[in-house]
Amino acid sequence: MHQFQYLFEPRSIAVVGVSDDMARPGSQAVRALLANGYGGRIFPVNPKYQGFEGLRCYASIADIEEAIDLVVIGVPAAGVLPVLEACAQKKVGYAVILSGGFRESGPEGIERERRMLEIARAANIRLLGPNCLGLVNVHSNVYAGFGSITREPKLAQGSVSLVTQSGGFGYSIALACAEAGIGFRHVVATGNESDIDTVQLIDALLQDPGTQCIVAYIEGTSDGRALLQVGRRALAAGKPLLLWKGGVTEQGARAAESHTASMTGRYDFYRALFKQAGIVEIQELHEAVDYLLAFSAGKYPLGNGVAVMGVSGGSAIVFADAGERSGLALCELTPATQEALAQVVPHIGAIHNPIDLTAGYFSRSNQEKLERAVRATLADPNAHSVCINLATTGQAGSLAAAEVLSRIARDTQKPLVVFSSAPVSQIADALRVFGEARVPVLRSPSRAARALAALLAYRQARERLARHDETSMQAPAAAAGLRPGTSLSETESKALLASIGIPVTRDVIVKGPGEIALSSMKAPVVVKVVSADIPHKTEAGGVRLGIATHEALELAIVQVLDNARTYAPQARIDGVLVSEMVRGGFELIAGMVNDDVFGPVVMVGAGGIHAEILKDTACRLAPFDEITAREMLDELHCRPILDGARGSAPLDVAAIAKALAALSRFAWAHRAQLQEVDVNPLFALPDGIVAADALVVTRKPTQA
Amino acid sequence: MHQFQYLFEPRSIAVVGVSDDMARPGSQAVRALLANGYGGRIFPVNPKYQGFEGLRCYASIADIEEAIDLVVIGVPAAGVLPVLEACAQKKVGYAVILSGGFRESGPEGIERERRMLEIARAANIRLLGPNCLGLVNVHSNVYAGFGSITREPKLAQGSVSLVTQSGGFGYSIALACAEAGIGFRHVVATGNESDIDTVQLIDALLQDPGTQCIVAYIEGTSDGRALLQVGRRALAAGKPLLLWKGGVTEQGARAAESHTASMTGRYDFYRALFKQAGIVEIQELHEAVDYLLAFSAGKYPLGNGVAVMGVSGGSAIVFADAGERSGLALCELTPATQEALAQVVPHIGAIHNPIDLTAGYFSRSNQEKLERAVRATLADPNAHSVCINLATTGQAGSLAAAEVLSRIARDTQKPLVVFSSAPVSQIADALRVFGEARVPVLRSPSRAARALAALLAYRQARERLARHDETSMQAPAAAAGLRPGTSLSETESKALLASIGIPVTRDVIVKGPGEIALSSMKAPVVVKVVSADIPHKTEAGGVRLGIATHEALELAIVQVLDNARTYAPQARIDGVLVSEMVRGGFELIAGMVNDDVFGPVVMVGAGGIHAEILKDTACRLAPFDEITAREMLDELHCRPILDGARGSAPLDVAAIAKALAALSRFAWAHRAQLQEVDVNPLFALPDGIVAADALVVTRKPTQA
Repeated sequence: MHQFQYLFEPRSIAVVGVSDDMARPGSQAVRALLANGYGGRIFPVNPKYQGFEGLRCYASIADIEEAIDLVVIGVPAAGVLPVLEACAQKKVGYAVILSGGFRESGPEGIERERRMLEIARAANIRLLGPNCLGLVNVHSNVYAGFGSITREPKLAQGSVSLVTQSGGFGYSIALACAEAGIGFRHVVATGNESDIDTVQLIDALLQDPGTQCIVAYIEGTSDGRALLQVGRRALAAGKPLLLWKGGVTEQGARAAESHTASMTGRYDFYRALFKQAGIVEIQELHEAVDYLLAFSAGKYPLGNGVAVMGVSGGSAIVFADAGERSGLALCELTPATQEALAQVVPHIGAIHNPIDLTAGYFSRSNQEKLERAVRATLADPNAHSVCINLATTGQAGSLAAAEVLSRIARDTQKPLVVFSSAPVSQIADALRVFGEARVPVLRSPSRAARALAALLAYRQARERLARHDETSMQAPAAAAGLRPGTSLSETESKALLASIGIPVTRDVIVKGPGEIALSSMKAPVVVKVVSADIPHKTEAGGVRLGIATHEALELAIVQVLDNARTYAPQARIDGVLVSEMVRGGFELIAGMVNDDVFGPVVMVGAGGIHAEILKDTACRLAPFDEITAREMLDELHCRPILDGARGSAPLDVAAIAKALAALSRFAWAHRAQLQEVDVNPLFALPDGIVAADALVVTRKPTQA
Repeated sequence: MHQFQYLFEPRSIAVVGVSDDMARPGSQAVRALLANGYGGRIFPVNPKYQGFEGLRCYASIADIEEAIDLVVIGVPAAGVLPVLEACAQKKVGYAVILSGGFRESGPEGIERERRMLEIARAANIRLLGPNCLGLVNVHSNVYAGFGSITREPKLAQGSVSLVTQSGGFGYSIALACAEAGIGFRHVVATGNESDIDTVQLIDALLQDPGTQCIVAYIEGTSDGRALLQVGRRALAAGKPLLLWKGGVTEQGARAAESHTASMTGRYDFYRALFKQAGIVEIQELHEAVDYLLAFSAGKYPLGNGVAVMGVSGGSAIVFADAGERSGLALCELTPATQEALAQVVPHIGAIHNPIDLTAGYFSRSNQEKLERAVRATLADPNAHSVCINLATTGQAGSLAAAEVLSRIARDTQKPLVVFSSAPVSQIADALRVFGEARVPVLRSPSRAARALAALLAYRQARERLARHDETSMQAPAAAAGLRPGTSLSETESKALLASIGIPVTRDVIVKGPGEIALSSMKAPVVVKVVSADIPHKTEAGGVRLGIATHEALELAIVQVLDNARTYAPQARIDGVLVSEMVRGGFELIAGMVNDDVFGPVVMVGAGGIHAEILKDTACRLAPFDEITAREMLDELHCRPILDGARGSAPLDVAAIAKALAALSRFAWAHRAQLQEVDVNPLFALPDGIVAADALVVTRKPTQA
């Protein structure tokens, strides 16, 4: 590891704020370093003590003669800044500030945090915290923290690293994993993230050869793009990144804001980002456990076909339920597979999928049969993964199965998972054998199904990444007329869309009545006032629909101009837009918002009543390609309509996808100028699409 | 317990099919009876043995001189019927048939199961199984089964009873609960349910004073109404019924069918039933654990307001997220509460909800402060329940908290739950104290939130039950003209609806052109051919919409008659229906289907494209009242439209609810005659509703 090397692997640690009161964070850190056998130098600091726990205790950082890689600060908030100044003098590289009383605690704390950062930046000290639980390097016995991370049980060594904004809750993830026998490399709690943040730590851990998998808990990030990039780097490196996002509901976001002043950000944007970066979202402690176990095997299904076998019909049914909900399909087995199974499965069992091996099948005397059954199933081209339900099978049967399955696992690249609900203490030997062979043992059939689904989604994300090529995502042309901080008129907005290849309705702009014959267009038409100063035209009485006669057209032109002038006397009015009305097809909405955290995000959704009431939308961070655009469309509940539900003609999905991808490239290329694009409605037709209205808003000068 | 008394509490047990092969189910049963100290007489049966495990072994049932309450049959399928005949001779009351090889294994097995039941019925023997794991009475050490239920770990005594169709999977529920310290009373695996079924067993367990809570796993039932009734009896008795329904997806149902030939039934009907009976649905093993812990306290929140306090901000945020998703709201705390909290919460903490006690707060020295903080919070009228996040708090802190909270729990009727992620072995003392005070300790904040939500839903279900009064649900009048096995014409169908108080569009039937002046109705009108023999009128060209002139009306009448005669020359045509078209409002669909398993079920949904594509529907088993009908409407995604979304007028929700309740009473009263009712569209208007089309189908004579 290069970045943060001496944060993670300090050769010496000073701990400021030790005392005989074991409730003091500093005391806990020093005792943990000693108890766990940290190999570097430890310098306790407290002017009132000569010694601490058998070590010489220093009056101050300045008194320490040797070089210090890392200073752990556990004094009350008011005392932190002087210590940090001493660190600056001493040219310390890293400080972990455990103390609370900063940004999270009101105006005084905000000012304190600002000054803290000032000192650190000036002296080139990198900070973890403040208001954090600290960090642990399990392999090197670095315990630069306090509280639960310094207490029993000691985490086993392993290849999982944990980064968490919340110490108390985040360490719950480590404890749940530890209980399931998962070992750790680094555990880092980031607290207020004044300086070093979760994204930077994940990036550093990607460079750590000892870290194979990363779990993170975050409440928010101020730079969604950095998270997207680090997620993609993790995906490219083949190191799965599991992430629990807290504050995903309105209520959760409020709680986060009140607690740590975290900006939680829009959850739909996070979810889009997770998909685009192959980040595995977790929302329960056991999901972290299950997915880490599953990923540890490093095997990924090539498709969603799964074969289930075992001694419990109920377990297979529960697996099938959860499988369907997470996109797995119990596959048809080939006649050859069924024939092979018939040789080794009792006749009162079942050789179709789910395969019923019958009660008591897992036993030493059946090992050869089991091996033939599992190998035959794994050889089936339709089975991309296999789940074996041991269910409540006891000690002897589980061990017999474990011996067979661990042998088979070494010969296959298809994921093989096991469901067992037997008490861990009863099947310890079997669990050991399974663990050595990296065969994940899940605690319910539904959890087994979801673990396999996570593996499948991860492989699909890697394929998406391989396809992702930002150089091919350049916008076709520079956009003219993007005046900062204004709304473009409908005409200008539609011209912009047309310039990037999105068809728009045929329009004519007139200054007043008498300029246009209705016969020159395809009736009915729509009449709308054109003014960049009137973004909400309907409110202003500036719109008339369904005009079918020339007389009605002339009248409508006069009316909308009158209405607009009455509504906004100061508005500059460029004329009246006469547009053909689109008939048939299905009304979509599309758009882009340039979010402060995530940058340009493109969305598409069902239009009209669906948009506002049913909120049937999908989004992705720009830029993206047409395949991704199709995946967005696949997420919509109204998707069947696009395929021609109710006997109507299928609509042009390819054209929609092309438009979304174009919009995303355009939004990305002009992200410095663009604030928002609304295409509403965007009509999906059997042959093509057409935007019937559009609004482009540019960024204010301060935003740009 | 009265029903099945000597099944659950046999004074003597004969076990047929013992041998030195411990894989034999009978051998496992006898050994488990002996090992666990069953107090009654045990009679092993096998003609080849003189003795078995120190007991006298009998050649046959007939050789046993004493009375036998229960016979456990573990011989291969082919040998079961002779044993059962011997039981009949011996006047045995109950038999548990462990053996497989019956209905689930093909034609021969189906015939065997039929004969088995014949023998049992003739001799008045009640059967459990076949193809089942048997039963355990934990308190009396009855082990009338084999496999995992006879193995270690022995279940602790408690007040939970488990009934499961699937032995292997169902016993996983018991194991998961046992691991969390939950004790059991009866465990019964029902297998094929040839005779005794899950519903009957639940009913019997409701009469068992030792059973306080029932957990069940079912794949299907042939009598949904019996399940509804037993669910309501459980609710009335205050014994929570937790139910895992397997085979809820298409794939899961297929797996169930292939495995046990179970009829899984429509999941949406099951879900409606669960709501109507207050059955607590579970879909994960840990949900059984969490809800049983929560229910064991017997305290229920009076509302959805919840206060959260603890040492981990992240935990509070995760709780808030899960709470919002399950209907809990972090409540505002009154100024008085906040003032009381300010006295005992450190100033860098937070006295609003979520309450931040700050790191390290849970300690012996803080016990008095904690007690004041929790009591103040519980006293807040907005807080209907309280969650305390210990998170990773260790041994000493957890015990200090447990002592305080267990004292407080005894003085409050508000639910108090705790989240702890500390390893169980680390906080064993605290868990014991919590357990004695029935303070549930949940393993994640989200699980704590969902457990509280389950308690709230249960209390709401009890209120619904108290309201439920079937005598007030009589249909207003007998329905004439329900000819068996036919479709009623639109006119007849609408007349039926009108007779139960559902408004229908104004219609006139004519025989041909020249009979009606358009001026007598409110244009536009719709013209439809009237024929009970043509249910799909649109296909037949029998419908014309939007007729605004008298000439068009005359032409349309001629055309639909011609088209219908061409489409179905044999059809009896009663004339042409001229109906006013409904304008405005929102299009719903409503209907009823008389399901083989569930009886009449009434549904309502968004109409038009929503109905077919978005499947936005809700249903309930008939009959039900208007409050229940409103709950159905509340489940619809389109619900905001009814309240007047997008600035339009609110629609008449009361009228919709009234119509649904009326339809449900009608459907229930005439369930012997009715097969299906479709009201499509049912227009919801600002003032009232109107059904614009309807189809009533009666049952075929064989169905009635």
